Amino acid sequence: MGAFHQGHLQLMQAAREENDRVVVSLFVNPTQFGKGEDFERYPRNLERDIELAAQVGVDVLFAPSNEEIYPRPGCSIQVAEVADLWEGEIRPHHFSGVATVVCKLFNIVRCDAAYFGQKDLQQCIVIQRVIADLNLPVRFSRQPTIRETDGLAMSSRNQYLSPEHRALAPMLYRQLSECREIIIDTQRPENDVDRALRDSASALEAAGFRVDYFELIELDSARPVREFSIPCALIVAAKIGHTRLIDNILI
Amino acid sequence: MGAFHQGHLQLMQAAREENDRVVVSLFVNPTQFGKGEDFERYPRNLERDIELAAQVGVDVLFAPSNEEIYPRPGCSIQVAEVADLWEGEIRPHHFSGVATVVCKLFNIVRCDAAYFGQKDLQQCIVIQRVIADLNLPVRFSRQPTIRETDGLAMSSRNQYLSPEHRALAPMLYRQLSECREIIIDTQRPENDVDRALRDSASALEAAGFRVDYFELIELDSARPVREFSIPCALIVAAKIGHTRLIDNILI
Repeated sequence: MGAFHQGHLQLMQAAREENDRVVVSLFVNPTQFGKGEDFERYPRNLERDIELAAQVGVDVLFAPSNEEIYPRPGCSIQVAEVADLWEGEIRPHHFSGVATVVCKLFNIVRCDAAYFGQKDLQQCIVIQRVIADLNLPVRFSRQPTIRETDGLAMSSRNQYLSPEHRALAPMLYRQLSECREIIIDTQRPENDVDRALRDSASALEAAGFRVDYFELIELDSARPVREFSIPCALIVAAKIGHTRLIDNILI
Repeated sequence: MGAFHQGHLQLMQAAREENDRVVVSLFVNPTQFGKGEDFERYPRNLERDIELAAQVGVDVLFAPSNEEIYPRPGCSIQVAEVADLWEGEIRPHHFSGVATVVCKLFNIVRCDAAYFGQKDLQQCIVIQRVIADLNLPVRFSRQPTIRETDGLAMSSRNQYLSPEHRALAPMLYRQLSECREIIIDTQRPENDVDRALRDSASALEAAGFRVDYFELIELDSARPVREFSIPCALIVAAKIGHTRLIDNILI
């Protein structure tokens, strides 16, 4: 979306290593923000982004205006099921906005491959669904989350945090890591997993987070699961003050 | 969709003349039929279609199964505004089904150009919107309606007509042509256009049709219009017995 940080730059570097041409889109997409969300104040820094993209060898930085992308109200993509869970439940039109703009950007750029960060794990799942369901000729690459040294997942929204909240924020990842240790420790019965998830959420709440969800999901469908025979992930969304953070960890 | 007639063959011929490779899709798409519509009995004739396509020099006939196109419930494309009018009003999910399968077919085939018949005019408008709104890299070509010698627009559904109804059916096109003559005859006031449309519908009803709509629309948006300074068309949908027919004429 913009205001590039190390997470974005890592995506560009991975694309740079594996492809002849690298195009980066820089577009804060209004249709994936809900009413009362942070569209207006979302971090933007075009001059700096141009410089950073050039430094990692990006060939084209595509930074269209809203009018170029949305000249009139248009078609949108509805994503089955996975878009209604978790982030989709809290942000009802979010993933339709994401799916639509990503499909448009793919078609404009005509890319062979697309690089997204694991930090937005459900977004990755949604886009993989769009690619599969609409038969888009694009190879999807999910890249690891880049973290600050204290474990906080890099995000443009981290800028919103006060020093006090910034100090608290790494607890999200610590709690994900601890919870993973607990639930992969031998074959725990379903009840123990439920309890581990609840305990993690409670610990965050006790520290001052307001937790939207702390869940174990199947990686393909984003549905809640209680078995580890399939690829799955722990996901969390929580607010500190006015700032909403998400993170996840694969199992 | 299949059971090829001269209308389909003309599309193939036009594509043949203007392109190096011609791919024809043959797929009766379940998601564009509503409950109680004619999906099950829609005309199909694979053996004959293969022969006809070969005769006009088609390179590839792509005839996938339902399971190949829809392995699971998936993403769908919602088309703004134009999909809610006329056919969309009577067949609520029809154009979403059309838009989604056409987008999928475009992506599977990776065609540079696509040929559709003017007979399904609103479908043409919808697909042009999908191409524009989702930035699909496809050139759209609308080909003229092919008619029987008595004026009836060719359609797979004409097979459903009894001999008696078949004799009545050409009246649709005659009424469209007459109405066009009346409304383009100098600069008629809006009321006269309204009356000409109503008179045409009444004449069809008196002859035994049940008219869903008889309208003058803007060619770009499918919205009703009363001025001819912009490209527009007369459109009609009516039932004879159990068979629903549509037709249109450009102004």
